[in-house]
Amino acid sequence: MVGGGRGAFIGGVHRMAAALDGEIELVCGAFSSDPEKSRLSGEDFYLSSDRVYGSYQEMIEKEKMLPEGKRMDFVSIVTPNHVHYGPALMALENGFHVVCDKPLAFNLKEALHLETLVNHTGLIFALTHNYTGYPMVKQARAMVKNGDIGQIRKVVVEYPQGWLSTKVEDTGSKQAGWRTDPKKSGVAGAMGDIGTHAENLAEYITGLKITELCADISTFVEGRLLDDDGNVLLHFDNGAKGILHASQIAAGEENNLNIRVYGTKAGLQWFQMEPNSLYVKWLDKPLEVLRTGVGNLYPESTAHTRIPAGHPEGYLEAFANIYRNFAICVRARLEGKEAPEVYRDFPTVQDGVRGMQFIEKVIESGKSDRKWVKF
Amino acid sequence: MVGGGRGAFIGGVHRMAAALDGEIELVCGAFSSDPEKSRLSGEDFYLSSDRVYGSYQEMIEKEKMLPEGKRMDFVSIVTPNHVHYGPALMALENGFHVVCDKPLAFNLKEALHLETLVNHTGLIFALTHNYTGYPMVKQARAMVKNGDIGQIRKVVVEYPQGWLSTKVEDTGSKQAGWRTDPKKSGVAGAMGDIGTHAENLAEYITGLKITELCADISTFVEGRLLDDDGNVLLHFDNGAKGILHASQIAAGEENNLNIRVYGTKAGLQWFQMEPNSLYVKWLDKPLEVLRTGVGNLYPESTAHTRIPAGHPEGYLEAFANIYRNFAICVRARLEGKEAPEVYRDFPTVQDGVRGMQFIEKVIESGKSDRKWVKF
Amino acid sequence: MVGGGRGAFIGGVHRMAAALDGEIELVCGAFSSDPEKSRLSGEDFYLSSDRVYGSYQEMIEKEKMLPEGKRMDFVSIVTPNHVHYGPALMALENGFHVVCDKPLAFNLKEALHLETLVNHTGLIFALTHNYTGYPMVKQARAMVKNGDIGQIRKVVVEYPQGWLSTKVEDTGSKQAGWRTDPKKSGVAGAMGDIGTHAENLAEYITGLKITELCADISTFVEGRLLDDDGNVLLHFDNGAKGILHASQIAAGEENNLNIRVYGTKAGLQWFQMEPNSLYVKWLDKPLEVLRTGVGNLYPESTAHTRIPAGHPEGYLEAFANIYRNFAICVRARLEGKEAPEVYRDFPTVQDGVRGMQFIEKVIESGKSDRKWVKF
Amino acid sequence: MVGGGRGAFIGGVHRMAAALDGEIELVCGAFSSDPEKSRLSGEDFYLSSDRVYGSYQEMIEKEKMLPEGKRMDFVSIVTPNHVHYGPALMALENGFHVVCDKPLAFNLKEALHLETLVNHTGLIFALTHNYTGYPMVKQARAMVKNGDIGQIRKVVVEYPQGWLSTKVEDTGSKQAGWRTDPKKSGVAGAMGDIGTHAENLAEYITGLKITELCADISTFVEGRLLDDDGNVLLHFDNGAKGILHASQIAAGEENNLNIRVYGTKAGLQWFQMEPNSLYVKWLDKPLEVLRTGVGNLYPESTAHTRIPAGHPEGYLEAFANIYRNFAICVRARLEGKEAPEVYRDFPTVQDGVRGMQFIEKVIESGKSDRKWVKF
Repeated sequence: MVGGGRGAFIGGVHRMAAALDGEIELVCGAFSSDPEKSRLSGEDFYLSSDRVYGSYQEMIEKEKMLPEGKRMDFVSIVTPNHVHYGPALMALENGFHVVCDKPLAFNLKEALHLETLVNHTGLIFALTHNYTGYPMVKQARAMVKNGDIGQIRKVVVEYPQGWLSTKVEDTGSKQAGWRTDPKKSGVAGAMGDIGTHAENLAEYITGLKITELCADISTFVEGRLLDDDGNVLLHFDNGAKGILHASQIAAGEENNLNIRVYGTKAGLQWFQMEPNSLYVKWLDKPLEVLRTGVGNLYPESTAHTRIPAGHPEGYLEAFANIYRNFAICVRARLEGKEAPEVYRDFPTVQDGVRGMQFIEKVIESGKSDRKWVKF
Repeated sequence: MVGGGRGAFIGGVHRMAAALDGEIELVCGAFSSDPEKSRLSGEDFYLSSDRVYGSYQEMIEKEKMLPEGKRMDFVSIVTPNHVHYGPALMALENGFHVVCDKPLAFNLKEALHLETLVNHTGLIFALTHNYTGYPMVKQARAMVKNGDIGQIRKVVVEYPQGWLSTKVEDTGSKQAGWRTDPKKSGVAGAMGDIGTHAENLAEYITGLKITELCADISTFVEGRLLDDDGNVLLHFDNGAKGILHASQIAAGEENNLNIRVYGTKAGLQWFQMEPNSLYVKWLDKPLEVLRTGVGNLYPESTAHTRIPAGHPEGYLEAFANIYRNFAICVRARLEGKEAPEVYRDFPTVQDGVRGMQFIEKVIESGKSDRKWVKF
Repeated sequence: MVGGGRGAFIGGVHRMAAALDGEIELVCGAFSSDPEKSRLSGEDFYLSSDRVYGSYQEMIEKEKMLPEGKRMDFVSIVTPNHVHYGPALMALENGFHVVCDKPLAFNLKEALHLETLVNHTGLIFALTHNYTGYPMVKQARAMVKNGDIGQIRKVVVEYPQGWLSTKVEDTGSKQAGWRTDPKKSGVAGAMGDIGTHAENLAEYITGLKITELCADISTFVEGRLLDDDGNVLLHFDNGAKGILHASQIAAGEENNLNIRVYGTKAGLQWFQMEPNSLYVKWLDKPLEVLRTGVGNLYPESTAHTRIPAGHPEGYLEAFANIYRNFAICVRARLEGKEAPEVYRDFPTVQDGVRGMQFIEKVIESGKSDRKWVKF
Repeated sequence: MVGGGRGAFIGGVHRMAAALDGEIELVCGAFSSDPEKSRLSGEDFYLSSDRVYGSYQEMIEKEKMLPEGKRMDFVSIVTPNHVHYGPALMALENGFHVVCDKPLAFNLKEALHLETLVNHTGLIFALTHNYTGYPMVKQARAMVKNGDIGQIRKVVVEYPQGWLSTKVEDTGSKQAGWRTDPKKSGVAGAMGDIGTHAENLAEYITGLKITELCADISTFVEGRLLDDDGNVLLHFDNGAKGILHASQIAAGEENNLNIRVYGTKAGLQWFQMEPNSLYVKWLDKPLEVLRTGVGNLYPESTAHTRIPAGHPEGYLEAFANIYRNFAICVRARLEGKEAPEVYRDFPTVQDGVRGMQFIEKVIESGKSDRKWVKF
């Protein structure tokens, strides 16, 4: 693991998600750019001190020396955006599979280079757009794919948060600090941090591609250096229209990612904060509420469910589905097999490139007087 | 009453709304452009046959002849859009107060003329943007006005319906027929029918004015002559940003008007289909759910509530609030008094003009390559 | 109308409910036991002063003298429980149909006498167990009747309110005063006021009869003279089991009447405070949410719906369904016809007798050491 | 681990819950009474074959022989009810701490013996009444303890499930099989399996003790050997009244454990299926919805939350809280310290004894004609 030492947020999420299914063991790490902090974090995780490293460079170099079966099987990168590219590049160049937090990189150029490298090496690369790991998101995607809701006409995807309603970055918050710092986060704030999740979710469920967009990007909190709100009109490749809005100044909102997809036969609605329900609004039948683990769901959904209906699975379980599927694919690779199709389903470096394109286009559109910017 | 005979929808709503509080009595009508149908409708309503007229012209002329105290006190216009202007004009010219269904007229020119006439005559004119009649909408407006949620930054107003997902206008549906007919409805379909409600609700609650907009207007159902979907970016006069989207092809949606208003201190959320709850999302306190009739609501809210908490009031009660307030104002005028301020609150001809401007601008923007159209 | 003058609650509800559909006109009343208050109330309602009476006796006597077509068609009794019997008796004896608020009478003996009189005279008698007037309650009943949920096994009906959590009757509240006064309310407080609604709703929807019960009846507020809470186990005539609980000290609850009915095929759930949704929990299919006016509902439901889907109908509309159906039946009687079956559906004097039996049995059981009391 | 091999349900839950926080490692097991099945299960979990045992006796004996630091630190018992006592007894007698699934034992006698042994040995014993592990359940308990809702008057706890609506035990379902078999489950079916969870939750949140109860216990599915439904009236030691009902024939219900607690100042409501919300219904303020991780919750709640607000935590996280707290206490014991108070909070052998008493009393009451059975 690269990053995720004391004081971090997403590192702990990755560790819990990886541990949940008993398929993955944390064996080594460079948990901080500060070697002492890395060492202390390693102790927290009961790691052998000789596998706690002072830098990701050291980690990759030394682990590579270890005999097969002893060395790490893959690298997890859980650092801020500006430290994704370096370790990902080095891991890939040294033959390690990679799990990387989103967005893929600091800018599109880095992202494209990583994509090339993944294609070239054939290594497995998972990007943790974790919201696609929810069983009912899988169900929604499968329903669309199977034509259950007809041809898609309209998509509304929202990601309102309120935690940056005030200038939290001035209070010493580590999470707020790097996310609002263009040197660490890249050209976008909210649109990169959460807007990309919304974009990824919309394309994942619908199977459509955004072709052009029109963005109204704002910074509401005085003195903030990056955007904290964005409203975007979307056109999709099948002619569908859409709206994407993401905000970190939507006062009182927790982490309210949600999506609606309207087809010619039905509409789908899903809320991340109540993730085990999928609302199906039929044109000519009563509203149905599909629930995780209840009734005849698609295999894509049931394969990502661990416990019986009514025992709520949450964020960590969805996140763990990314890791579990990744692990199954890595194991299959090691065994020279192909993983079952239902598990070959996690966001990849291609999703990451698409996310970086979205970030660049949405910011470009925000500054433009033209209505539509091609995606 | 003009219009609202057998087979109509909104006429019955107006009659029930007017009757609810025992302040208004239906005394005469021209219920259809077909005199025989008008006559039969009059029988349905137990009206004396000599006050059921074959045309609105006849009605206004003959009623005017009746002695004061006997003749109608005001005219309700519940016809399709293209028959608003005629009866409204004649009513005003003959000294009758008017209640008119929305949108105000067939086009902006008609609307502006009516506004001039209202200003000139000093007659009372109510436009039934009925959704502003709900007690929790009044509460939301009062909260904004009193600064409870701070300065407004973002507004999201939605009006999804699904009933025009197929070409219903070809099935003989009277309601679908005129709404999708440019000769009866005007330049807009969904944006006029329901988009204006959304625009009116947003401005009513926030007290802000839209200054420019960027619209993506679509017709999804093949062969339909007017728009059935629209996504609009909004700029408000205080710098707030917004999104308005309305659709009649959002499969499976009933009549799901809803709004969110995010300020610097809190966010508000209200759903027309669950109208007795107002969600207040505080920045630093737990989510509160204000409920009609519960606790210390603003007088603007309690003055529009009839029954104790937990006894749900709905669409007709909200609609009746428009009529009740109008009736109180008409009665006060007759008595030479001023109605209490809390009741001098119903949509007026000015709201109607604004709605017509919205319709024209949103359609203009939909056709434009420029990003922003001034409002 | 008997009762319902200034300061009353349910009288206004009756007037609005009666007025809504334009089928009933308030023509006379004895609105208070205080003749002056009755007179003033009559002015509020724009009644001719010669038809505002100082007592119900005077009203019935004088109205009876009026020629047919001029005199009132029926009597509405909206007084506290101890003044139901007198006016009902006199109305029936003088040939007037009756609408009476619930519970039917002060005690079972009175109730049985009224039942005999109704049977004897053949007059139409409606009891305003208004909650059965909701379209989705009608739907639930029709679903049970048609076997959609299979054989009923379990019923849970709840009626929690919180407004009597403190000794409100000492604050001058007229509503709390008579409800907690054994001289006006009868042997029961909460169980009579709202417990009977719960009992009526359960039997109405299920079509079953309670055969025995086991009650735990409490008075939590010190010094209160009647029960303010009750928990009751139920046995039904088909072998189903049930729970009924009602409370007026359930802090923070508004008027949360709700019911669940579990059959061998599905469970139904309905909440009075969100009355336009009926949840159908299938054994082997996704949860369905039936909504007022949406899709293929039973005629019993659609006949009691006024406006299109998504336009919420509430308490007054449900209450108005009782009046509307009563009016249709009275009119049919006047015209020598039989009203269509779908409208011959409102609570009757028999429901009232059953309610009074429930009150007496539940209080008896509350005092008993035996587990089961036959109903 | 004892039990939890291939085909089991709760074993996997225990493993995931134990793994989540990186504090506990599965090191050995006797996963099935069938040694071959145990061996295969051990492979599934990547265990060294020499620590996969053919029986719990063998496991405890052999592990005890291992040097400190190598041998297991505690035993998890995840078998059906009739195989709780044996391994628990042997583990305690051999000095191992124990985590045991609920209910504690096959009957009260066994339970009391285990309690004595725990008291005698001083070993740490956790019973997985996992629902008390939810952050918002902790919050509810803390609110009651701190007097926020005043004196408790009424408790309603429900546990409806529908999965045994048909004779599932005849279809080869392992889960249904032992739960409906008196030889494996004990004297109670639903009341033992889920009724005890409801009883435990009610006493945990309220801090009150049930003193007497009146039960109506049923078996609805023909040929079933144990109860599948129960409705129970409760009296608590402070004078509060309550209702507990649990069912496995509530058609269409998933796992709908929920509770309401009404005090003199406010009511609390919590649903297991939407576990991150706690509804607080104030007597004189708007309804509040407390949410996991939002605002100023009690430390008892925040100490059991892993991720930021709006990232839903579910069943496994709550279950993991039991394991995490247990692990912290075991580790503190090993280190000769006392764990912080906030973590010394998990169900113990005493809760287990109370649960067994509940089971026996509720079944006794179900057969009795007396109204109240002392608890």
